[in-house]
Amino acid sequence: MIEPSTVVDRLRRTTDTIVGEAELLERLASGRPLRIKYGVDCTAPDLHLGHAVNLWMMRQLQDLGHQVVFLLGDLTTRVGDPTGRSETRPLLTPEEIEANAQSFVEQVSIVLRTDPSVFEVRRNSEWYDGMRVAELLGLFGQVTQAQLMARDMFRERVAAGREIAVHELVYPVLQGYDSFAMRSDLTIVGSDQLFNEQLGRHFQQRLGAPPQAVITTTITPGTDGRAKQSKSLKNYVALTDTPRDKFGKLMSIPDSLVESYARVYTELPLDTVAALGSAAAGGGPPARDAKLRLAAAVVTRYHGAGTARTELDAFTRTFTDRNQPTDIPEVLVGTPGATVLDLLQAARPTDTKSSLRRLIRQGAVTVNGIRVDDPTKTVELTTDVVLKSGPRTWHRLRLS
Amino acid sequence: MIEPSTVVDRLRRTTDTIVGEAELLERLASGRPLRIKYGVDCTAPDLHLGHAVNLWMMRQLQDLGHQVVFLLGDLTTRVGDPTGRSETRPLLTPEEIEANAQSFVEQVSIVLRTDPSVFEVRRNSEWYDGMRVAELLGLFGQVTQAQLMARDMFRERVAAGREIAVHELVYPVLQGYDSFAMRSDLTIVGSDQLFNEQLGRHFQQRLGAPPQAVITTTITPGTDGRAKQSKSLKNYVALTDTPRDKFGKLMSIPDSLVESYARVYTELPLDTVAALGSAAAGGGPPARDAKLRLAAAVVTRYHGAGTARTELDAFTRTFTDRNQPTDIPEVLVGTPGATVLDLLQAARPTDTKSSLRRLIRQGAVTVNGIRVDDPTKTVELTTDVVLKSGPRTWHRLRLS
Repeated sequence: MIEPSTVVDRLRRTTDTIVGEAELLERLASGRPLRIKYGVDCTAPDLHLGHAVNLWMMRQLQDLGHQVVFLLGDLTTRVGDPTGRSETRPLLTPEEIEANAQSFVEQVSIVLRTDPSVFEVRRNSEWYDGMRVAELLGLFGQVTQAQLMARDMFRERVAAGREIAVHELVYPVLQGYDSFAMRSDLTIVGSDQLFNEQLGRHFQQRLGAPPQAVITTTITPGTDGRAKQSKSLKNYVALTDTPRDKFGKLMSIPDSLVESYARVYTELPLDTVAALGSAAAGGGPPARDAKLRLAAAVVTRYHGAGTARTELDAFTRTFTDRNQPTDIPEVLVGTPGATVLDLLQAARPTDTKSSLRRLIRQGAVTVNGIRVDDPTKTVELTTDVVLKSGPRTWHRLRLS
Repeated sequence: MIEPSTVVDRLRRTTDTIVGEAELLERLASGRPLRIKYGVDCTAPDLHLGHAVNLWMMRQLQDLGHQVVFLLGDLTTRVGDPTGRSETRPLLTPEEIEANAQSFVEQVSIVLRTDPSVFEVRRNSEWYDGMRVAELLGLFGQVTQAQLMARDMFRERVAAGREIAVHELVYPVLQGYDSFAMRSDLTIVGSDQLFNEQLGRHFQQRLGAPPQAVITTTITPGTDGRAKQSKSLKNYVALTDTPRDKFGKLMSIPDSLVESYARVYTELPLDTVAALGSAAAGGGPPARDAKLRLAAAVVTRYHGAGTARTELDAFTRTFTDRNQPTDIPEVLVGTPGATVLDLLQAARPTDTKSSLRRLIRQGAVTVNGIRVDDPTKTVELTTDVVLKSGPRTWHRLRLS
């Protein structure tokens, strides 16, 4: 058996905090397979590299024989938790929930093993559908209003003068009770879920069960450098993205993100990670090379080394090969973030706006080798950007 | 049919506010029997004159053919609402709840008619036992945390740094939904219940039903002049008190309460009420006479004019008849509230404390004709007090 402390140490690379570490070590030492709670709501999933950080940690534990309990919060989705969203989430139909749940399992299977010996799918409707109102109210008696309102998200809402519906307020109680009902030993979550999962420990203790350990993972900014990877901003690399898209999106991140991305999204040795970080900090061709290395490492993780090499070649060729002239004209741009249409206008000042829009619509425009369909898409000029419009026209855009 | 406005006007004598008066008038005009929600929790009842104010209003409506729906909050009692109490209420067993419910029905039948044509007993477990968690959470979605926290009692608790358990927080939601589930047209409550019953209107409207009207009633201080009639202070006249105790307790109230007691606890004409108030304000024998009139009117209401006359005679005899000398020695007392033992010591300074205690324990001591067993009982000297100790010893105690 691998030493419990070694198991935990291997997780540390992408760990932010561990609550209940002593209990976790003890349980690992017992030799019994742990039950790892992976709770999700059943809204339409689009898992990205950020989510995958947690999945890879669970995968490590699966490889040691531990059990991931994939808990679909179908009941709680019907209720709705608006974590980090300004608006209360729309209620879903049972059919939508079911479809989303299936999509979820498919996506997690990109990382997790799904054989029944290490993967179990549960739904929290299993315990909530049979629960009586009096019993639920009994659970409510185990927690105070002040405890719930201590949650960051609630405090932010109150500070912003926004409302908290009571079903939202009690959502953490349900999520917490889930841990008891499914006998969770450990859960690995984003730090925004720490509050709810600590309530899980609270309920387990109140109800006479051993409390789960909670590991929160490192949060990494989106590909645009913004703090949150968000569906509306599409600023992330999705697990279902093609290898080409993954590669291209990673090539578009700010240099300053290379090191942290390499640390949490790849298995590159940590000294390599540090070296990539230093190279990226200097800018220019070494930064470009560091990013290529990062992109290749991520694609390797998800699609294998062969695919990664293919994508690396394709990308390099697009930018440096026979098709692309060596003497691309440079265009200086005044603002660090502009739309594709703006950039195209800067590069081709004599063309009309409508003809440029048509070019984009025809699929004749690429940014760093990636085709762009939306004239209003923003391009960040954190490093130079190569803009191709039509079969033989290149421009290198540089922040002035 | 009596004019709806006349019906409402008759209730006004003991009404504080009416929410939804227009709807109430309209419903009365429809001629259909109204469903009047009389919701109670199932803790051990000891109904007093304050509760009876509401019951008499319902009785008026019963006499016009309207239906009182006596709603036992058995589910909500299992949950516990700590209205106005510093401590969370202990949870009761189903047997205790059932016993309390029976006692409740017995006590309300002192005022209400209980024939099925105008009286119906329901339990809120009828709808909550069959309700699923998801449905309850749906109700929670109809109300915000801020709405619930607006409740006076919650704000007071927060201000005092005390906790609010979540089951307590959601209690008003349950009480509010009750109004929908039982199709309440009207409820008559103390002002401390206005918040919860307005939530009832909210749910009825949200769920597509016409909202109940809410009448809140005049709150009258306890027999000791304190704001609240409370079980722990025993400062009220209970409906189950004997006629003698009712009479005696009413004779012990401060003069300043005579007018308001006469207004809300009797059916004396309002000009008589005003006259009693003036008489009481002057003190001395006219105040005493006003109080006798009040006590007789209350006893008449509950036990009939014959019994009231008997009690009036008995009381008067005790204080003024052959047994009681006309030249009772006066004792001046320095503080307006003292224990029976203190007063006895002041009256009989040569006796030992232990012998005085023994007198009390033997049942040989009366205060204003009422036997006292507890040496530590406080006596208010708002008017003179006649203390009898042993068969032939009287003292008139007067505040110096």
